Amino acid sequence: MKLKIKRTLLLDGLNKVSHALSTKNLVPVLGGIKFDLKKKKLVLTASDNDITIEYIIVPENDSDFVVDVEGSVVIQGKYFLDIVRKVTGEYINIEVIDSVKIIILCENSEFNLNGISVEEYPNINFELSKKFITLSVKDIKEIVSQTCFATATNEESKPVLTGINFNIDKNIVEVNATDSYRLARKQIILDEESSEKYSIVIPSKNLLEFSKIIDNNEDLVEVHIFSNKVLFKLENLKFITRLINGTYPNVSNLIPLEYTSSIELNINLFYEALDRVSVLSADKEKNTITIETFNDYMILKSSSLEVGRVEEKMFIPKLDNNIRISFSAKYMLDALRSFDGDTVIVNFIGEIKPIILNKKDDSSLIQLVLPIRTY
Amino acid sequence: MKLKIKRTLLLDGLNKVSHALSTKNLVPVLGGIKFDLKKKKLVLTASDNDITIEYIIVPENDSDFVVDVEGSVVIQGKYFLDIVRKVTGEYINIEVIDSVKIIILCENSEFNLNGISVEEYPNINFELSKKFITLSVKDIKEIVSQTCFATATNEESKPVLTGINFNIDKNIVEVNATDSYRLARKQIILDEESSEKYSIVIPSKNLLEFSKIIDNNEDLVEVHIFSNKVLFKLENLKFITRLINGTYPNVSNLIPLEYTSSIELNINLFYEALDRVSVLSADKEKNTITIETFNDYMILKSSSLEVGRVEEKMFIPKLDNNIRISFSAKYMLDALRSFDGDTVIVNFIGEIKPIILNKKDDSSLIQLVLPIRTY
Repeated sequence: MKLKIKRTLLLDGLNKVSHALSTKNLVPVLGGIKFDLKKKKLVLTASDNDITIEYIIVPENDSDFVVDVEGSVVIQGKYFLDIVRKVTGEYINIEVIDSVKIIILCENSEFNLNGISVEEYPNINFELSKKFITLSVKDIKEIVSQTCFATATNEESKPVLTGINFNIDKNIVEVNATDSYRLARKQIILDEESSEKYSIVIPSKNLLEFSKIIDNNEDLVEVHIFSNKVLFKLENLKFITRLINGTYPNVSNLIPLEYTSSIELNINLFYEALDRVSVLSADKEKNTITIETFNDYMILKSSSLEVGRVEEKMFIPKLDNNIRISFSAKYMLDALRSFDGDTVIVNFIGEIKPIILNKKDDSSLIQLVLPIRTY
Repeated sequence: MKLKIKRTLLLDGLNKVSHALSTKNLVPVLGGIKFDLKKKKLVLTASDNDITIEYIIVPENDSDFVVDVEGSVVIQGKYFLDIVRKVTGEYINIEVIDSVKIIILCENSEFNLNGISVEEYPNINFELSKKFITLSVKDIKEIVSQTCFATATNEESKPVLTGINFNIDKNIVEVNATDSYRLARKQIILDEESSEKYSIVIPSKNLLEFSKIIDNNEDLVEVHIFSNKVLFKLENLKFITRLINGTYPNVSNLIPLEYTSSIELNINLFYEALDRVSVLSADKEKNTITIETFNDYMILKSSSLEVGRVEEKMFIPKLDNNIRISFSAKYMLDALRSFDGDTVIVNFIGEIKPIILNKKDDSSLIQLVLPIRTY
């Protein structure tokens, strides 16, 4: 293998696949990036067994990419990425001799790295499915920012709750995330109907990694679903994540069909009031806040035996007088952050029933927060 | 105690004294900030027994500061700081009832905090010495940025090496920091001679905290030295740190008087070359680099058995051919960062002798790095 390549072109590709580099040293070859060099393209692959990324560098012009000898090798990823980041000069020359000796030349530096033979690299199946659905980059980034926070982080909880549940039926994608104290639900309408029905659970942190390496909101991502994995394809990039086995709880019946009170609130004002009132209990796990309505005022209250208590009033005209409910300030703040725009509707049924948040006349995003019994 | 005060004025004072708030809960009262309210001033005090800060808020105009009842109380610092940061409105009303019940009113929020009686707060001696020396804020910030990094961090090493050594004699302040592998020495000339001779060791992290709360480079700081503490005074701020007991090693004899080779190097070019060459060994504790000179070139080399090796050439005209020395890249990079300007002089004596860095014709800042034997 022998190649001269524009440094920024190589760095861009390395930055993408490095999200799948294994940081554990259990399988040394997975600390490497696999290079497959052909006349007109360089294929980079990295995998930590949980996610796998393939990125194909295709040069826009000939001078950026001069292939002398085709070939393959595995290069230790962490070091190589650091080298390509730190060297100067517009081009990098990479040559492999004796299968695993890698020489990197750039301006005044010469690196000699120990490579690993490609024979040792696991065989990865990047085959596409004939049936796939299409989401935009914007869809995926919104799913991540609006639902991931609601998944369970504690590995001691049910593994299935550490993932994001995708239900795909005809032209509707319903996405759920819950840690069993709150629920985030997002609905996306597909331009083209899915020919199959799916219910899968994608590890939340893997979806987050994928969202970090895609950026152009208008780009379209093919989502190829298999029995044990999902493959996302976007131009020269393929991203595979495993799925989480197990039955996702039926969360639809948690969401009430009718409410007894619905209040339209300014998101910023409500957020900042909650943030202030939660100061005294912010270091507590539950971080409980109580809200009560009274004579056009919503009163937010919190107290801590050791520290003290706090009350804050928000003036809200034409308010129902019958609301009194306690909940976790942290969960409510998380839920509020997922909405854009100025206002949000907060819906109540009763003191021991879930609180539901959504935009006015819009159920494409629903946040549910369970109440906390305070007596 | 009853007070109406401009929020930003209070926040500024709280931010200053909070650097001394104890985060350990060993002595609960030290998690508090002591308020002493007089007709024309509010004195804030915080201490974690290691450092103690007093800041006096003196209002510039009457409307910013309305005192109804003088008095004293200790308020739980972490919570109060958070409250004053997060509440809205231009003014905050603070009232103490029954000695330890604190009511805080601001716009729509009302906080009731449990205070602590001032009787429980330790008595702190803020008395000044009649003899003191004067340093500028710039001097202190430079001492911190140019020497603190060279102190020992490991508490297992001699405690005295975790501090900064100040030797004051006549109009010269000589500052030393060493972890026994490298030495940073800075010299400051005083405008006014010190009437006494001092050799003291200030905990490095305490000096760092002090440097964070002073910002106007031209301001002058009085340094009052006592047998077991130093008190820094700057306008309304007093900052006390304990001293470290023990004899500081005599480091002067480490610095050679003559060199066999001196090279003037561009700081950025040398720094970046070292940074590249150290990539392969950056995760090793020693991070050893070797430099050799040959025919107007300085060669930087490094290698790691598992990863590989690297060589980089720097063209330096009229170079001595006889230099070959190994050292820690990390220590050399730290030392280089302490110099401003474009160039630095790197002085050598021999393979097993210290490397000395200084600016041309200037010995006010000296960095010493010990070599590493590689055979």
